[in-house]
Amino acid sequence: MRKDAVQQDPFKSVSIIGMGLLGTSLGLALKQRQLAEKIIGVGRAGSPSLQIALKRGAIDVARTNPAAAARSDLIVLATNIGVFPDLFRAIAKGLAEDTIITDVGSTKQQVCRWARDLLPRTARFVGSHPMAGSEKRGPEFARVDLYSNAVCFICAGKAGRMELAAQRVEWMWQQVGMRTLRVKPQFHDRWVAAISHTPHAAAATLINLIQADAANLLRAAAGGFMDTTRVASGDVEMWTDIFVTNHLAASKSIRTFVQLLQGFERAIRNEDRTAVREFLQRAKTIRDQLPQRQGGG
Amino acid sequence: MRKDAVQQDPFKSVSIIGMGLLGTSLGLALKQRQLAEKIIGVGRAGSPSLQIALKRGAIDVARTNPAAAARSDLIVLATNIGVFPDLFRAIAKGLAEDTIITDVGSTKQQVCRWARDLLPRTARFVGSHPMAGSEKRGPEFARVDLYSNAVCFICAGKAGRMELAAQRVEWMWQQVGMRTLRVKPQFHDRWVAAISHTPHAAAATLINLIQADAANLLRAAAGGFMDTTRVASGDVEMWTDIFVTNHLAASKSIRTFVQLLQGFERAIRNEDRTAVREFLQRAKTIRDQLPQRQGGG
Repeated sequence: MRKDAVQQDPFKSVSIIGMGLLGTSLGLALKQRQLAEKIIGVGRAGSPSLQIALKRGAIDVARTNPAAAARSDLIVLATNIGVFPDLFRAIAKGLAEDTIITDVGSTKQQVCRWARDLLPRTARFVGSHPMAGSEKRGPEFARVDLYSNAVCFICAGKAGRMELAAQRVEWMWQQVGMRTLRVKPQFHDRWVAAISHTPHAAAATLINLIQADAANLLRAAAGGFMDTTRVASGDVEMWTDIFVTNHLAASKSIRTFVQLLQGFERAIRNEDRTAVREFLQRAKTIRDQLPQRQGGG
Repeated sequence: MRKDAVQQDPFKSVSIIGMGLLGTSLGLALKQRQLAEKIIGVGRAGSPSLQIALKRGAIDVARTNPAAAARSDLIVLATNIGVFPDLFRAIAKGLAEDTIITDVGSTKQQVCRWARDLLPRTARFVGSHPMAGSEKRGPEFARVDLYSNAVCFICAGKAGRMELAAQRVEWMWQQVGMRTLRVKPQFHDRWVAAISHTPHAAAATLINLIQADAANLLRAAAGGFMDTTRVASGDVEMWTDIFVTNHLAASKSIRTFVQLLQGFERAIRNEDRTAVREFLQRAKTIRDQLPQRQGGG
C-alpha cells in the first residue's frame, strides 16, 4: 500500500456547519453509508434546524459555536456563502493540522480567496460545489439521495498535501453518489454563470416582466411558464450571495445572453422566418441531446 | 326556453383538421364525453397520423382533403398556424351557413385577420387558444385529459350571430375541462407574448448561450437548467409560426424583458446587494403565489 494513497476509511468526525437542505442531506447520506463515526452539526442558537437535523438522525451532536468544528477530520461549510468569512475566522484558531475543510457553495473564486486569506497558511481547503439542491430550503426537505447522480465540481490547489485532501473530498462525494469534476475556480464560475446564474436571472426577469398583469395572467399560466420560472422561487439570500460573489462572470454571461436574445428579437421583428427557424432549431438540437433530469437544483 | 339560448346538445359532426397532439387529444375528449356524433379527421395523405388517430378512436372517418370538412357543424383547425391560410381557402367554398369554425392556434390577431379576409363574410369564425400542449408532438402523445384544468382564450366578434357561435365554442371547451376566458386578439397576443413567447425565446437563448461549451456543460446541468430550458425542445415549425405571426407583441415583450434584465445585470455588476435582493425577492413573491402546474404546454 502506497504511503500517499488516498484514505478510504470512514471519517472519525465530520462537522457540518449549516443545517439547511444541503447540510442535513449530507449528514443523512454520510450516516446511511457509514462514512463518519461521529457527525457534529453546527447551527444557529434558537433556530429549530439543529433539532430537526438531530431528530432526523443526520447528526449525532448539536453545537451552536462554529469553533466546535475546528478539530474534526472534515469540516463542511453548508451555510449561505455570505457567512463564510465569519466561519473561516471562527475555525481558524483551533484548526488541527490534518483537518480538511470544504464547502457546498455555488461560487468558487471568492470562496477560495477567502479561504486563502482567512485560514492559516497550512490549512487544507478544498472547494466543492455539488450541483444538487432544490428551491425548497431547510432540513425538513433533506433527502438521503439528494446528491445521487449529480455532478460535484472540485477546486483545489496543486501541492501534494492539497492533492491528497482534494482526493479525500472527491472520495466522500463519490461515496454519496456524485460524479466529481476537477476545475479551476475561474472556469467553474464561468460555467455556472452560464448554466445556473443566467438561467436564474432570466427566470426572475420573466416573473418580474408579468408583474403588472399578474392577476390576469396567473390563471392562464401553462406548464411551460411554470417550469421555465421554477428556480425563481429559490432562496433570496442564497441567490443574492451567489450573484454578488460571482458578479464578474454572472454579469458577463448575462450580457452575452442579452446579445444573443437581441439577435433573435431582430429576426422576429423583421419576420425573418429563416433566421427564427435556425435559432430555434439550433436550441432544440442541443436541448434534445441533454441527459434526462438528474438530481435537484 | 329562449330562442337564442346556446345549444347544449352534441354536435352532429365535427371536423378536426390536423391530427397532431392537440387535434387527436380533442378527438379523444369529444368522444369520451359523447360531444360529437361523428368526427371527421383531416390529415395529410401519406402521413401515419391519420391512421394513428383512427386506431386510437379519436376520429370516425379519415380524410385528406380539407374541403371535406366544409359542411360539418364545427370545424377545428389544429395544424400549425402557417397552414391556416390554405385551410381557410379550402373550406371557404362549400361552407354551410351554420358551420362554426375555430382553431387551436397560439396567436390570434393574424389568425382572426386571415379568417376575416379569406372566409365568406357570413362565416362564423371564433378564435380559440387552449393553453395546453407539450413539447412532445404527434397523435401518439395525445391524451384524453390534455385540456383538463387549463385556460382557453376565446376571441370573437360582437354581433349576435357571432356571440352565439362563441358561446357554443366556449361550451365545447368547457365540456372537455377548460376554463374559457374571452379576450380581444390584440390583448391575447400581448399576454401570450409575456407568458409564453418570451419565456420560449429566453429558453432557446439559454441553450444557444452554452452551445460552445456544451460537451463539458451537459454533464453538469442540474435540474434547474433542465426545467428552465424544457420548452426549447418544442416543435420548431410551430414556434416559428408563433413568433412570426405574433412578431409585434413578441418582439416588444422581449425588448421589455431585455431592459429589465439589463437593470438586474447592472445591479450585479455593481455588487449592489440591496438591488439584487430586491429584484429576486419581487420575483419570488410573485412566483410563490402562482397556482400549481396545470395542464401541459
